[in-house]
Amino acid sequence: MQLGMIGLGRMGANIVRRVVADGHTAVGLDRQHSNIEALTGELGSTFVGTTELADFVGALQAPRVVWVMIPAGATSALIDQVAELLEPGDIVIDGGNSRYHEDIARAAKLKPLGLHYVDIGTSGGVFGRTRGFCLMIGGEAEAVAHLDPLLQSIAPGFETAERTPGRTGEPAPAERGYLHCGPAGAGHFVKMVHNGIEYGAMAAYAEGLNILHRANLGTVDPKEFSAEETPLERPELYRYDLDVPEITEVWRRGSVVASWLLDLTAAELHADPNLDAFGGRVSDSGEGRWTLDAAIDTGVPVPVLASALFARFSSRGEAQYADKVLSAMRKAFGGHEELAGG
Amino acid sequence: MQLGMIGLGRMGANIVRRVVADGHTAVGLDRQHSNIEALTGELGSTFVGTTELADFVGALQAPRVVWVMIPAGATSALIDQVAELLEPGDIVIDGGNSRYHEDIARAAKLKPLGLHYVDIGTSGGVFGRTRGFCLMIGGEAEAVAHLDPLLQSIAPGFETAERTPGRTGEPAPAERGYLHCGPAGAGHFVKMVHNGIEYGAMAAYAEGLNILHRANLGTVDPKEFSAEETPLERPELYRYDLDVPEITEVWRRGSVVASWLLDLTAAELHADPNLDAFGGRVSDSGEGRWTLDAAIDTGVPVPVLASALFARFSSRGEAQYADKVLSAMRKAFGGHEELAGG
Amino acid sequence: MQLGMIGLGRMGANIVRRVVADGHTAVGLDRQHSNIEALTGELGSTFVGTTELADFVGALQAPRVVWVMIPAGATSALIDQVAELLEPGDIVIDGGNSRYHEDIARAAKLKPLGLHYVDIGTSGGVFGRTRGFCLMIGGEAEAVAHLDPLLQSIAPGFETAERTPGRTGEPAPAERGYLHCGPAGAGHFVKMVHNGIEYGAMAAYAEGLNILHRANLGTVDPKEFSAEETPLERPELYRYDLDVPEITEVWRRGSVVASWLLDLTAAELHADPNLDAFGGRVSDSGEGRWTLDAAIDTGVPVPVLASALFARFSSRGEAQYADKVLSAMRKAFGGHEELAGG
Amino acid sequence: MQLGMIGLGRMGANIVRRVVADGHTAVGLDRQHSNIEALTGELGSTFVGTTELADFVGALQAPRVVWVMIPAGATSALIDQVAELLEPGDIVIDGGNSRYHEDIARAAKLKPLGLHYVDIGTSGGVFGRTRGFCLMIGGEAEAVAHLDPLLQSIAPGFETAERTPGRTGEPAPAERGYLHCGPAGAGHFVKMVHNGIEYGAMAAYAEGLNILHRANLGTVDPKEFSAEETPLERPELYRYDLDVPEITEVWRRGSVVASWLLDLTAAELHADPNLDAFGGRVSDSGEGRWTLDAAIDTGVPVPVLASALFARFSSRGEAQYADKVLSAMRKAFGGHEELAGG
Repeated sequence: MQLGMIGLGRMGANIVRRVVADGHTAVGLDRQHSNIEALTGELGSTFVGTTELADFVGALQAPRVVWVMIPAGATSALIDQVAELLEPGDIVIDGGNSRYHEDIARAAKLKPLGLHYVDIGTSGGVFGRTRGFCLMIGGEAEAVAHLDPLLQSIAPGFETAERTPGRTGEPAPAERGYLHCGPAGAGHFVKMVHNGIEYGAMAAYAEGLNILHRANLGTVDPKEFSAEETPLERPELYRYDLDVPEITEVWRRGSVVASWLLDLTAAELHADPNLDAFGGRVSDSGEGRWTLDAAIDTGVPVPVLASALFARFSSRGEAQYADKVLSAMRKAFGGHEELAGG
Repeated sequence: MQLGMIGLGRMGANIVRRVVADGHTAVGLDRQHSNIEALTGELGSTFVGTTELADFVGALQAPRVVWVMIPAGATSALIDQVAELLEPGDIVIDGGNSRYHEDIARAAKLKPLGLHYVDIGTSGGVFGRTRGFCLMIGGEAEAVAHLDPLLQSIAPGFETAERTPGRTGEPAPAERGYLHCGPAGAGHFVKMVHNGIEYGAMAAYAEGLNILHRANLGTVDPKEFSAEETPLERPELYRYDLDVPEITEVWRRGSVVASWLLDLTAAELHADPNLDAFGGRVSDSGEGRWTLDAAIDTGVPVPVLASALFARFSSRGEAQYADKVLSAMRKAFGGHEELAGG
Repeated sequence: MQLGMIGLGRMGANIVRRVVADGHTAVGLDRQHSNIEALTGELGSTFVGTTELADFVGALQAPRVVWVMIPAGATSALIDQVAELLEPGDIVIDGGNSRYHEDIARAAKLKPLGLHYVDIGTSGGVFGRTRGFCLMIGGEAEAVAHLDPLLQSIAPGFETAERTPGRTGEPAPAERGYLHCGPAGAGHFVKMVHNGIEYGAMAAYAEGLNILHRANLGTVDPKEFSAEETPLERPELYRYDLDVPEITEVWRRGSVVASWLLDLTAAELHADPNLDAFGGRVSDSGEGRWTLDAAIDTGVPVPVLASALFARFSSRGEAQYADKVLSAMRKAFGGHEELAGG
Repeated sequence: MQLGMIGLGRMGANIVRRVVADGHTAVGLDRQHSNIEALTGELGSTFVGTTELADFVGALQAPRVVWVMIPAGATSALIDQVAELLEPGDIVIDGGNSRYHEDIARAAKLKPLGLHYVDIGTSGGVFGRTRGFCLMIGGEAEAVAHLDPLLQSIAPGFETAERTPGRTGEPAPAERGYLHCGPAGAGHFVKMVHNGIEYGAMAAYAEGLNILHRANLGTVDPKEFSAEETPLERPELYRYDLDVPEITEVWRRGSVVASWLLDLTAAELHADPNLDAFGGRVSDSGEGRWTLDAAIDTGVPVPVLASALFARFSSRGEAQYADKVLSAMRKAFGGHEELAGG
């Protein structure tokens, strides 16, 4: 089968590599010649590289499969452009990080042209090439069914996890790592919530490790406490110098909190035990915010996911004005002077 | 009636001033001669100042009323000392910020000596002298009853708030601003929860004002957004330059969020509209933490009070290790580089 | 001056009453004859009641002031209707609970017609008639200036709060209880955040009172603890039968948490000490949600406001599916059986 | 090597099974004959079962290894008893769920007797027998070193996870699934934080799945919304009937949120897709609470871990009084009637 890929950055190129490695062919489009050349050298005749949209579409066989894998902000405009060159029955996929609202709009726009729109939320990050990509898919059933051979090649595959007890027979697509979740937008909706969960789980580890990191607070000379800190009532309870990297390692085997995120954390902490490479300003992409929006719209309480997002905002100094207000109030009613930073 | 006060700092001195102004007499003890002299000059013969414990006790008439108003850390030792000089029937009051656990222990210790122990949580801060102090009281009923004339003088008084609809007859003590809450520790318990609520309410204002403060984000040139910030989807919705000081002023009249904390905030913002005097490192005293401990012990969900406390911790940089862990994870799975601070 | 009011429900009628009481005249429109009759009987010749839009507009003098005070969902359609009957220079006010997004759209739509649009967020609830309404106003400066005499009559007035220290001279509008916050939408934006703060402050009290309510947990026979409850480590610390109604009363005088919300809470608890009239399913209107949306859009951390909103969702059972997931997980890894409710 | 085990419930018996399967011998003590008989039948001569403490100690060779695996509440008393029968150089292990405070006290008490105290936090639940137990260990280095052969047999072993990139040479103990974390109490401290993280991660999944579960809210007839619910502004965005069990399955392969907890969740949801077996009252054991206590003591912000704990409290109805307070306030200022449940 043939895959057309627009955008040969890390994600797009790795998807192409996986389908070609599994016996398919691919046509790629990228404005950067270097991206084209790299893949051509690597994949040989199974890959056709192009730098112009017309050439790209011309190299595809109908029904064309056009996977768009470019920054979310540029996707809608590009889909409009490519749609003009396609024919009824062709399939347009957005595999990027669009908000699912846009998928609903795009599908409605492409439908009168006879084009199928499929949204695919893609998880796996830099490890996707070897580990496979987890694919969450939205769109019409027939279009998704047509893509099945490609999806199987891109997804991790059945053998990459132990089978869930109770499941029998031919593995379901979900057991191979891809799932048709529902109509247009369903793929990005599920991916969005996936990322929301990711934020929460990451924060759970980060907060817990912070407690371990501070478990030696009782060994600090009380005189070194600044006046703004409450001295420990029982310093003898906090006299542990814990080896956080080794603790993350030990949890990888047999514990309840074993996870892929923990595997990665253990690797990072092994390489940089004090995390000296980082300053602690944590970015957030749209998905975490959109997950909250969806929860608020539907009245679902998500205190953990919200706390995780807000901690990222705070890590970038966004609480500072609020904190100044608190200091001003404390001065006003209690005469408390704020202490200099330290 | 006569009040003995140990500790003539701001709080102790203002309580003495209120009882004397209301016709009582007072004996004070303070190691600092200047504190004694100031009050003596001001209050004349209605006040006897001492600098030695024996002189202080000697100047009191039985049954003695000894109010201890010194830093919480020194209170227990001092109460042990003073107890040796007292006689059965005397009353010892801790009006400071002790944890209520200690009150329970102290009452049990003083009881065999025939001494009464009363704990009084005191709210009102620097405004207490003129506004009166809100008194939350724990201890045996008879001892508290004996103190009634003094408590009336220290508390704000009935006329300082409009009467609650439905209440009739002789004003209850609570309507004068003091309340016998229960046995030993009950006063500090109620004061502790008061402070927990205070943290939560303060944070509610601070977070809301922060939103107002940022309501002009849509006027920022998108090019000035750092790469770690999500650009606004609809910048046209955030083009307000709001006058936060005036907004806090307008809410003081007729709004649902009118409060004494808001009065203070409006005053601070009027004096220093950009809060330039503050850096945003917010201290916390023990009460906020103890409130959480009590909630956790009794299984009461307190997400708001907890969030308020943790925001103070974070304002002092205590989330930094956790934030570094998050950045490390993001780099590991997504190849995301953390950006330099800005 | 003359006020036209569409919608004579509680809020609209009370605003009319305040302006008439202060020497203005009013024209009212309401489909319900009973609402019209009640006001006509009460206000006499200073009030003209109508039940048809054309009659209403006809009774107004140019430049007309049309205040719309109807449910938010019906406001836009009505404004469209009324706009057709107005003339350049007339002023349309939305005093309801519209989202500020709509104000921006409406102002843009009315501008080409020469009509001025003003949005007014109104706080004060059922007490507004006597206490006055706190008014947060968005729109063009000239239109707002034209309304000044009416705004002064509706707002609480300067004397309803002690003057903020440091303020001198002629009272500013904010000191009378109304404020022109900015262009279209600014009024509802500020009102929205006001309500967000309200949610947070309410939750702070509610959580704190819940701790007080449970302070007697140590008197419960441990055998009565269900197996799903952690027994108290130190039951002797939780043996207080606290009188929550009296505690809210005492805090009204001299404490840091004194507020109008506390005044109301004390009144409710005095009338119904165990809150038997309530089941604990707490509604939320749009403003609390929109405040969160605004915070998320602008990257402002609001853990307290969010926790307060989510607690309301949870109070209505919206966490139940999540809770079932937790129970399923616990059974899976620990063999823990969930216990029957009790 | 020989292991003495007191308490042959599920955990104790499975640990005995693992050491015996790996070539060691074991002596067991349990008051319940049936527990003894079951293990004797299964393990034959490699296991000696006893029902009296003296017999148990008598069957052990010096230096004795006595692992106590009984409910936390009974552990201290039993350790006191057994200590009387032991000799200098013997080792007492608490493998249960004690609070680390107790470990510190016990180690200090046993030291003058020449006895070594080791605390082992054990994770793995009902899967530990086959999956191995993750062991977090506190105590003196020599004692822990002496136990090494047993610990290796109980822990999962090196091959149960892929090696962390960058690690080379002979696998460290952490890579086999056990770790000497520090002096007395360090094992239970690390296990406590492990459980705190577990609560947070579980809640992240549960909240996210709840959003997926409600993604069809836009298909509900608006007339069926109760008056206390805010109708959806854009119902067309919430018209997905998502298959939550299949979504948890697909995330197991290649996604960022793949974890053992997710594996278990997928299995539970496959077996009971609507979670009909559960009511949603979620218990909490001590560790989640103690984790918060430690964070509060040391000033570490843990909003996610706290939110997760409080959600469990709320699931059991513990927010109800607070919710009633909110309803009372709403009625007071807005005249809002609370609606009946449904």
